[in-house]
Amino acid sequence: MNLPKNQFNNFINVVITANKEIIELLENGSSEEFHQSISLGAGGDVSSRIDLLAEEIFIKHLSEFGNIYSEECGFIDNQKSDEIVIDPIDGSDNFASNLPYYGTSVALKRDGKCIAAVVVNLANGEIFIKDESIFKRANLKNMEFKNVQKNSYSKLGLFERAYDSKGTSEKMRKYGMKYRSPGAFALSLAYAHDVDFVLFEGKIREYDIAAGLYM
Amino acid sequence: MNLPKNQFNNFINVVITANKEIIELLENGSSEEFHQSISLGAGGDVSSRIDLLAEEIFIKHLSEFGNIYSEECGFIDNQKSDEIVIDPIDGSDNFASNLPYYGTSVALKRDGKCIAAVVVNLANGEIFIKDESIFKRANLKNMEFKNVQKNSYSKLGLFERAYDSKGTSEKMRKYGMKYRSPGAFALSLAYAHDVDFVLFEGKIREYDIAAGLYM
Repeated sequence: MNLPKNQFNNFINVVITANKEIIELLENGSSEEFHQSISLGAGGDVSSRIDLLAEEIFIKHLSEFGNIYSEECGFIDNQKSDEIVIDPIDGSDNFASNLPYYGTSVALKRDGKCIAAVVVNLANGEIFIKDESIFKRANLKNMEFKNVQKNSYSKLGLFERAYDSKGTSEKMRKYGMKYRSPGAFALSLAYAHDVDFVLFEGKIREYDIAAGLYM
Repeated sequence: MNLPKNQFNNFINVVITANKEIIELLENGSSEEFHQSISLGAGGDVSSRIDLLAEEIFIKHLSEFGNIYSEECGFIDNQKSDEIVIDPIDGSDNFASNLPYYGTSVALKRDGKCIAAVVVNLANGEIFIKDESIFKRANLKNMEFKNVQKNSYSKLGLFERAYDSKGTSEKMRKYGMKYRSPGAFALSLAYAHDVDFVLFEGKIREYDIAAGLYM
């Protein structure tokens, strides 16, 4: 892994380990198990069992780094000064619908400010990592990290929650703004340098975007 | 590969070989090369070099099976009775924009009727194959084919060309129909059994949907 050594190396490595454990779980588990509905999300949502299982994996690996704020468990006070904001499965509905655009999102915050983040596309293994000195991407399969750069060939933007848009989609059509609406916030923000724009409409919760917005 | 032997085995195997060659090309080529714009598509579009390269690979492998109708080359008369309808890169704009939802689509037609088809998601290796006796899916990485079955956990539908919709998106919002708009026709049709609905609005060309519609 061609990353410069800095204070976030250990945190990022542990997040990568947790993501690999989640990918292994997805490859070996059954969809009956993953898609059971469980109603206890801190965000008011009905959670799937996979959200809880992924969250457990993150909590197990990341509690040493800070207090944890996540969709399913709410806030876990580990008596630390840093805070870790997690979306254990970003794009849960895509995962349930076998649409290959879902991932995980982890942000490390200090004094209210994001200082390191990792976003992984679980459907194809792409990973984005960012801290104060680096912003890189790779695939978990080969871990060949490269700097994230603006993609000059982009033909479109990303418009999340287009299905719930009141009038914006009509305006975009009039202006000829071509977009996709793929359905995972943190992932779409991580891909922001690849596309012309990222737009979303509606209610947003911190764990949806903490890592992605930092990117 | 756990497929029953039938008259389409050879055709499907050759389409798989062609797809593997395209994936190898994508893994080893440079984006500068792939995204060059070339204006000679039979569909009136400006083609990217990757569309042409992928089409060349399909023509090389598939000409023995029939005449070829494809987006870039138009119609190639190989003096055969069957016809092969190809979309060499389904979701070209996604590919250019690094959005991981693009693939290939190949349909074999006899007497105007589709009799075998293969759709591949190049972004994650998923493959769908269908002929008169089977409809199966696998990942090219492990080739463990399973029957395509209705996904009872789906939370949404797919709405292609939502960005160009005149009023339909507003109606769907009113009825609370949740959708994604991922941007590759044949792929979205191949995923139809995973989701609640697949809808598209606007002009459609045969090579966009021949294989997917059969699925």
